[in-house]
Amino acid sequence: MTQALWSKESSTTQTELQKTITHFMSGGDVILDRELMLYDIQASLAHVQGLQRIGVIGDEELTQITTALAELTEQFKSGDFVLDSRFEDCHSAIEWFLTQKLGDVGKKVHTGRSRNDQVAVATRLYCREALDALASHCQQIGKTCLELAKKHEYDVLPGYTHLQRAVVSSWGMWFASFAESFCDNAYDAKNTYELINSNPLGTAAGYGVNLKLDRDYTTEALGFNRKQVNPIYAQNSRGKIELQVLGSFKNALLDIRRMAWDLSLFSTAEYDFVTVGNDFCTGSSIMPNKHNPDAIELMRAEYSRLVGAYNEIESLLSLPSGYQRDLQSTKGALLRGVSSAQMCLELVPALLKTLVINTDKCEAAIDASMFATDKAVELVIEDGMVFRDAYRHIKYNYQELENRKAIHSLKKRVSPGAAGNLFLSEIEGRLVALS
Amino acid sequence: MTQALWSKESSTTQTELQKTITHFMSGGDVILDRELMLYDIQASLAHVQGLQRIGVIGDEELTQITTALAELTEQFKSGDFVLDSRFEDCHSAIEWFLTQKLGDVGKKVHTGRSRNDQVAVATRLYCREALDALASHCQQIGKTCLELAKKHEYDVLPGYTHLQRAVVSSWGMWFASFAESFCDNAYDAKNTYELINSNPLGTAAGYGVNLKLDRDYTTEALGFNRKQVNPIYAQNSRGKIELQVLGSFKNALLDIRRMAWDLSLFSTAEYDFVTVGNDFCTGSSIMPNKHNPDAIELMRAEYSRLVGAYNEIESLLSLPSGYQRDLQSTKGALLRGVSSAQMCLELVPALLKTLVINTDKCEAAIDASMFATDKAVELVIEDGMVFRDAYRHIKYNYQELENRKAIHSLKKRVSPGAAGNLFLSEIEGRLVALS
Amino acid sequence: MTQALWSKESSTTQTELQKTITHFMSGGDVILDRELMLYDIQASLAHVQGLQRIGVIGDEELTQITTALAELTEQFKSGDFVLDSRFEDCHSAIEWFLTQKLGDVGKKVHTGRSRNDQVAVATRLYCREALDALASHCQQIGKTCLELAKKHEYDVLPGYTHLQRAVVSSWGMWFASFAESFCDNAYDAKNTYELINSNPLGTAAGYGVNLKLDRDYTTEALGFNRKQVNPIYAQNSRGKIELQVLGSFKNALLDIRRMAWDLSLFSTAEYDFVTVGNDFCTGSSIMPNKHNPDAIELMRAEYSRLVGAYNEIESLLSLPSGYQRDLQSTKGALLRGVSSAQMCLELVPALLKTLVINTDKCEAAIDASMFATDKAVELVIEDGMVFRDAYRHIKYNYQELENRKAIHSLKKRVSPGAAGNLFLSEIEGRLVALS
Amino acid sequence: MTQALWSKESSTTQTELQKTITHFMSGGDVILDRELMLYDIQASLAHVQGLQRIGVIGDEELTQITTALAELTEQFKSGDFVLDSRFEDCHSAIEWFLTQKLGDVGKKVHTGRSRNDQVAVATRLYCREALDALASHCQQIGKTCLELAKKHEYDVLPGYTHLQRAVVSSWGMWFASFAESFCDNAYDAKNTYELINSNPLGTAAGYGVNLKLDRDYTTEALGFNRKQVNPIYAQNSRGKIELQVLGSFKNALLDIRRMAWDLSLFSTAEYDFVTVGNDFCTGSSIMPNKHNPDAIELMRAEYSRLVGAYNEIESLLSLPSGYQRDLQSTKGALLRGVSSAQMCLELVPALLKTLVINTDKCEAAIDASMFATDKAVELVIEDGMVFRDAYRHIKYNYQELENRKAIHSLKKRVSPGAAGNLFLSEIEGRLVALS
Repeated sequence: MTQALWSKESSTTQTELQKTITHFMSGGDVILDRELMLYDIQASLAHVQGLQRIGVIGDEELTQITTALAELTEQFKSGDFVLDSRFEDCHSAIEWFLTQKLGDVGKKVHTGRSRNDQVAVATRLYCREALDALASHCQQIGKTCLELAKKHEYDVLPGYTHLQRAVVSSWGMWFASFAESFCDNAYDAKNTYELINSNPLGTAAGYGVNLKLDRDYTTEALGFNRKQVNPIYAQNSRGKIELQVLGSFKNALLDIRRMAWDLSLFSTAEYDFVTVGNDFCTGSSIMPNKHNPDAIELMRAEYSRLVGAYNEIESLLSLPSGYQRDLQSTKGALLRGVSSAQMCLELVPALLKTLVINTDKCEAAIDASMFATDKAVELVIEDGMVFRDAYRHIKYNYQELENRKAIHSLKKRVSPGAAGNLFLSEIEGRLVALS
Repeated sequence: MTQALWSKESSTTQTELQKTITHFMSGGDVILDRELMLYDIQASLAHVQGLQRIGVIGDEELTQITTALAELTEQFKSGDFVLDSRFEDCHSAIEWFLTQKLGDVGKKVHTGRSRNDQVAVATRLYCREALDALASHCQQIGKTCLELAKKHEYDVLPGYTHLQRAVVSSWGMWFASFAESFCDNAYDAKNTYELINSNPLGTAAGYGVNLKLDRDYTTEALGFNRKQVNPIYAQNSRGKIELQVLGSFKNALLDIRRMAWDLSLFSTAEYDFVTVGNDFCTGSSIMPNKHNPDAIELMRAEYSRLVGAYNEIESLLSLPSGYQRDLQSTKGALLRGVSSAQMCLELVPALLKTLVINTDKCEAAIDASMFATDKAVELVIEDGMVFRDAYRHIKYNYQELENRKAIHSLKKRVSPGAAGNLFLSEIEGRLVALS
Repeated sequence: MTQALWSKESSTTQTELQKTITHFMSGGDVILDRELMLYDIQASLAHVQGLQRIGVIGDEELTQITTALAELTEQFKSGDFVLDSRFEDCHSAIEWFLTQKLGDVGKKVHTGRSRNDQVAVATRLYCREALDALASHCQQIGKTCLELAKKHEYDVLPGYTHLQRAVVSSWGMWFASFAESFCDNAYDAKNTYELINSNPLGTAAGYGVNLKLDRDYTTEALGFNRKQVNPIYAQNSRGKIELQVLGSFKNALLDIRRMAWDLSLFSTAEYDFVTVGNDFCTGSSIMPNKHNPDAIELMRAEYSRLVGAYNEIESLLSLPSGYQRDLQSTKGALLRGVSSAQMCLELVPALLKTLVINTDKCEAAIDASMFATDKAVELVIEDGMVFRDAYRHIKYNYQELENRKAIHSLKKRVSPGAAGNLFLSEIEGRLVALS
Repeated sequence: MTQALWSKESSTTQTELQKTITHFMSGGDVILDRELMLYDIQASLAHVQGLQRIGVIGDEELTQITTALAELTEQFKSGDFVLDSRFEDCHSAIEWFLTQKLGDVGKKVHTGRSRNDQVAVATRLYCREALDALASHCQQIGKTCLELAKKHEYDVLPGYTHLQRAVVSSWGMWFASFAESFCDNAYDAKNTYELINSNPLGTAAGYGVNLKLDRDYTTEALGFNRKQVNPIYAQNSRGKIELQVLGSFKNALLDIRRMAWDLSLFSTAEYDFVTVGNDFCTGSSIMPNKHNPDAIELMRAEYSRLVGAYNEIESLLSLPSGYQRDLQSTKGALLRGVSSAQMCLELVPALLKTLVINTDKCEAAIDASMFATDKAVELVIEDGMVFRDAYRHIKYNYQELENRKAIHSLKKRVSPGAAGNLFLSEIEGRLVALS
């Protein structure tokens, strides 16, 4: 029989139907809770410390519970305590462990709290750590891109619009674009961290309790920057917080999608601008000749997992105030989205470092027409033509563009941020400011 | 080392990075493949039978492979053969098993096919079975609702628009609405079954092969109603098929969402129209008084899982023709959506049968104003007033509506389908025609 | 003052707040209704004919109303009657017109119906026509692709997986893939047509009325294949029907997205396989050299509009049974999605006919490694090697693949559906069967 | 003929097909641009000032252009200059106007810029203003809710979980929950403002130009807090920025959805806790008795429009770097989502102020079981029982809960944030800090 805190009259035997219902209702909840277990223990400790401060639990009792929670932490980490279908969820498991171990003292741990604020605070701690890791990953990617931008500052690359050749660009500009975007992504992750960094512990089932809980203490103990004051709001945040967190992950993965698209095209035989490291490629079961940059495609696909998780949660959230069981389903989507995205982000710097640029092919892809825009501007500056006339002139006189060299054109493109003037130090400054 | 058909030069040791990459690229793919394994074996058998028919495999060899595949089926079902991270996927596992067992004969099984058509056909078989089960569930729900509509034909229920009381309705009409909608849902599931019931086996990696495969044979052997002729189309169907399947599940779950909403409201203390069976309810960890119809809320939430799965797949599908590794990610979403929805649908009839209707409360909720519309029509029919005038008249003379009885009003509502004229036999006819 | 059927006590002056509220509540509803107006008139005629059959309206009155509705139709088509913010919606406009014209007779038209079934039936008629047009467009695209497949049957095209060169393919196979997929898309559009082809007229506000309406008559008069029996179901279909319709459009536009991606890549300088007709291209405001295939990119983008419309509607549908005003918002999304998709589909055949294939470039893109798979099969068939060994052999002996010609390889690829054996007649047969 | 900056050889006559293509490609773009026109003029002025600073445009020319742009602004505002299908977009219109008016001087305005950075900067200015308005609306709603929380601090309201009665709550707590959440929503809107407040002007078509543009000047002139350094990043931000903006709107509208759900339920006959102001309600076309709180339902529905807009844009963004025409489709979705949400948010304070609370009904809905949780805590505090035992004791002894009064229970619920201890001053402090 599954341990449940609300305990139906125990029937030692369940019908087949009852088993199916139990299976349907628990979902894989207790398995998912393995990700939350340690956060729940951490918050449980703060809770009982808070109870001790208002006299609900004695000093001695606090020591006992503290010791037992430390023991549970160890057993959980070592695998001696397994969170499985014996328990309805990690919350029930913790109370069960304490009660088994400490008897009546264990039965006190739930005074003044509900599983509702318990899961809220554990999830909040999880989200905080996820955003912290996100910010780190973004900074790491930004740093790697900046280094590669410096290394390849003047390596020619065609610039495209509509996938059609447009003007001369550079690998330096390409890498720098991601260096800058990942600064913004890190900045946003930090903003979201602040936004959600409020403490829902002490709001019980969404309406508080008739106990003067020391919420300021638990807020500080758990490192939150403020308490989430209102209990109804604490419950109504369920799902909303998750969307905010996934929203920040989306920023990063959306840029990875673009990056992966570029690399996917640039590594085709037709472009042949770059080679992706062997470790990131696979072969085919039928075609002996295949050498496919699968990792890049999977990185491109990663955003979709966030789309799935985000839309799943969002679709749950057409509900009145207060906890509804529907909200349980937010958990799986959040964990799935976050863990998968993390794994992808972790690999990006390593992948970028394996790229080998085929400079000859890149230069060969610069044709004369790609100097047309520069020439139009020159006609303005040097010959005093008005721009729209210069534009029309060159449109019908491409022959004037022969004999230019890509690298010369590149270096003359000096508008701030352009290939001849990448402003890498400004981007570097932003990266430094983030850390 | 993971068994891969495309086999890199085997390095017995992997770096940490390589392990992370492998983990990222395989995802939980091989675990997901446990759902597809038996379909893959079934299709593999058809494939080798086809090869025998065109002389690529001898009669004896066919017998050997057939026996070995039967053995693998048994071992897989019994748990003696476990599909785990030793293998890249189920496709690799099957070839590995055959080669271990049969040596060179096993190495022949992949002649003329690719994992691309292999996973396509296994997925198609899975989808077909999922749609079949969906149609059954819908018919079962329709049948249950029809029975309950008969049983509660004249049990009064307020009819609402904008959640405001509108006119007299009945539990009979409420149940009948789902009886009819689940006819349509079953019909649609069958349509989608026909739509996707085409055979991609024999299209290899999306371009066919230089072998005159007997695709008509495999099409018939696997019970498809046609072959999917074009190999590029077979690959481009990846994801599209999945969306079509999930689309049909959505129809059913969208109606369940409505049904669950109604029951969720009707079982509040404020409405108090119905009680949900105890097996479908739970309690609270902090509030001793709670008795919550959680199963209903989880049924309402179920649609969201389909939203997540559907959007995840859809978001992958902005790609050029041909297989791209991104498409691997369609698998998890499909399996997750289908299996979860099935479990929910299975429970609906059982849940409906536990409903206890509180007829007193339902009748008490019919107030005089709810007869206004009927009275306006009576003024038209009996007193020859024109409708818009009758409407305005009654709007200011509610006192004329006192002393009516809900059940009388109900029985006079005889437009086809209305509470006094449910046309249950027509719905029953449609249900019968479906089976 | 806006004409509203439910008429508040008329206040000739509205406060600023009231105006804002009115604006918020009406949305652009009456403007959107221009698309539904003629369907509403058509259904209104059927409704009054039905009323006449049960004696609510006299023969003479029917004639008057019929004449007036015909007149309104003419005025609406000619622009003499403009549906604008004078009216709350098209339903109010029709009753207003009849009442202005016919006095008391006009006030009878709403007997036994509600705007709820009125908008449902008008929308159903609109959806039916949209699906009909969709099926036609799909057949037209299928037909065009089939013709082009015949024309380019043996025009070489590299076949890609992972965007990497895989094996020899052909333009014939490429066009045939869309010919076949658009058969399925047309088939699905027809299925959805049948699925939704039921008559909600006569269900009033979702609970029927106390009048024995002749719903069989209106069902036949409006060409529905059945009545939607249950009034609650009729209301609960709102949004669900729209999703089904948009779902069928998605099938077609998803294939267009793939097609557009291919053409977008194939028309880059790097591939240079095909040129898109000038009418479908534009230039740049700053770069004189640009000639961009914008129409293709917009076709690729078109699917997103359906995603938006579909998700918008879906997100509304977490509601209890019965009409809720939220559902009004389904209208804009449906109309936006359908009309935009139609315009795109209409242009596809014209665009395909402008394609000029650069056969030299296509052939030049076939390198020796692309014969590896064929060679492996040959080693099996001709030399008796087992496939997996043949695969490994060729993987390290590419030199054996020199001197092959793409066209010869192509013609030997004879598995049903492959480049040497396109089975166009089977696809043609399916196209014919659809019309 | 439409004015286009890239001017095809002018054909004075277009075929029907060409017209359809033009219609398809322009979409309603130029109509949408009416929203962006003034931002484009503003940015155009900064651009030409920047050109003057680097000597591309003379002082006199700058004065001429400045005057002409001011004139265009006036004409546009007054309606004398209409942006319609004569123009491809607002960018073309501005250059056309200047060239008509100033001849060669007008042709200079596009020197060193592209429509790509032009639309990016206009959109950024629009987004900034939208976020500014969002923050204001959120603060206004927060303020209104805070006032109402004070006013109704001790008005009893049942607290629900699972829509089942749980414990005593209050209207004060309900209003305070939204006061606090709208603080966070305003905070997030401000964060997003900072995140996107970077200047893309001067990045041309995504690769900069061969001119040392004074981007620091334009950045300051337009009030941006930094330049968006990298031109590729500027282009790749298209769509990403829009998602971030819509993401912030979602926070607010998600809370409105909850609020509307509560009000929708609380204003039913079954709950009867609150009455919504008459201005926000409508009637029915068939049922004389109906008085429906439509505005509340439309507010609940508003979130869906954002879902539609967000998903539409997101679905476009699976693209390689650089501008692709697909991105044009982001515009309509953004404008649609923002303008609709603004209208809704503007009405919320007015609606809340019309609420009339039915205190008798609210109190009557508090039944004895709702004191069970409080009693369990009392057994802990006063009788020294351990919580889990107290919980079990009271579960079977409800009779001990008779004779309690809701208001007494409410005042004893003193955990920080709970009904007896709302901490309104802390929320007020946050509101003040925001302004």
